Amino acid sequence: MIGVFDSGIGGLTVVKSIMAAFPDYDITFFGDTARTPYGIKNPETIIEHTVNSARFLVNNGARLMVIASNTASSIASEILHKTFGLPVFEVINPTVESAISASPGVRIGIIGTRSTVSSGIYESRIKTRLPTAVTTAAACPLIVPLVEEGWFKRPETAMIVKKYLHPLKVRQIDTLILGCSHYPVLKELIQRKIGRRVRIVDTPAAVTENIKFFLRSHPELDTQMLKTGTHQYYVSGLTPQLNRIAQFMINRYVELRHVKI
Amino acid sequence: MIGVFDSGIGGLTVVKSIMAAFPDYDITFFGDTARTPYGIKNPETIIEHTVNSARFLVNNGARLMVIASNTASSIASEILHKTFGLPVFEVINPTVESAISASPGVRIGIIGTRSTVSSGIYESRIKTRLPTAVTTAAACPLIVPLVEEGWFKRPETAMIVKKYLHPLKVRQIDTLILGCSHYPVLKELIQRKIGRRVRIVDTPAAVTENIKFFLRSHPELDTQMLKTGTHQYYVSGLTPQLNRIAQFMINRYVELRHVKI
Repeated sequence: MIGVFDSGIGGLTVVKSIMAAFPDYDITFFGDTARTPYGIKNPETIIEHTVNSARFLVNNGARLMVIASNTASSIASEILHKTFGLPVFEVINPTVESAISASPGVRIGIIGTRSTVSSGIYESRIKTRLPTAVTTAAACPLIVPLVEEGWFKRPETAMIVKKYLHPLKVRQIDTLILGCSHYPVLKELIQRKIGRRVRIVDTPAAVTENIKFFLRSHPELDTQMLKTGTHQYYVSGLTPQLNRIAQFMINRYVELRHVKI
Repeated sequence: MIGVFDSGIGGLTVVKSIMAAFPDYDITFFGDTARTPYGIKNPETIIEHTVNSARFLVNNGARLMVIASNTASSIASEILHKTFGLPVFEVINPTVESAISASPGVRIGIIGTRSTVSSGIYESRIKTRLPTAVTTAAACPLIVPLVEEGWFKRPETAMIVKKYLHPLKVRQIDTLILGCSHYPVLKELIQRKIGRRVRIVDTPAAVTENIKFFLRSHPELDTQMLKTGTHQYYVSGLTPQLNRIAQFMINRYVELRHVKI
């Protein structure tokens, strides 16, 4: 099956996107909610947690691994590939590729958590691909808690999103990367505040395109994938609140199951 | 020395309060920032992390232990006392006592993180002490990230605090418990929004009073305490951002040191 790993449950937006593209494929999600957030941890700790989480998915039958976490994507994807010998899809490169193709003037804005933005990972990958690109990044640490509070329609959320996007508007970006798996939930609001002419690129759509392309070009692997439409959701730490947030992310009823890893 | 433990760095407000009351006493703070937040973790995990954190402080000379974390206070204080045989001060009981003495009509409001509020710990402790007490609790999950963003004076913060306090105003509370170590940083704003007639009780002041009383009545222990005015700050996960937030909490320059536990 397809294994989707995230440090928290934001990665359910990635599951939602993969599920829409591959409705019959078995998908197992694991969110390392007992150890979230990864962004503030050191690289060795992040690698250790990511490998342990991935091992759980592999032991449960994952033949293809998706890392929904931006932090784990930037640090641990090579190691996962080497450790388990599976195709590993991380979210950063496909998102950068999508943004570069979407951007007419290659003026790309990036929003993300403070740790993603201060890592500079999106900017450096964009510059590597296209040194003339103009990039601007803004850390938006309040968006994740606003989403997890379920405050999608509240005026405070709109004000805060507008404030965060202001420096990107000033820089006249033409494309905006949502560099955090929680943000697609607020995509409409973000689109309204950044302006209709700016193209929004999000990680779930980008990585799903990547998987589509990969499976089309590797039919031998595609035929090995279970296609019984079974979806399973595991987390390393479970609270009643987490189940509520999970619905927001994936826009359907899910039952998170607790597993000790 | 006095060892102060918190799951994150909110507990620096407790250090600040203890420092003001005992300027000469050596204080060592340990924030388990690599594993924060505790509120979403299961009790066994919280106990394990708290004991490990406390061991670090004990090995470094702590003769008196303060648990600044609300979650760890409610779950792990007995176990710490039994494990290390030290006087252990948790924040909940002294705060409940302060609130009950401060409250003329015993109409007590409690604000805290979602996990503290849904645990019902403050309400049940208040009711145990005074069954006739009227309590109302409100979860305010956005206050911690707003404080950590440094948005003390922004209109969004005022709006959000006002919204969170609204149900408590309606219930006409006369006393308000700040049941989270981050909240004292916004005490003035909270006082303005809840109204001047409501008495605010915060955990740092309450636990500091408790320690004062204890050391006065146990001079034999008091004389053992180092009083060289040395203050040390350790965290299990360190980022540049964390040092910035630490200044907000304690209102002075601190240098957090990283330690692996």
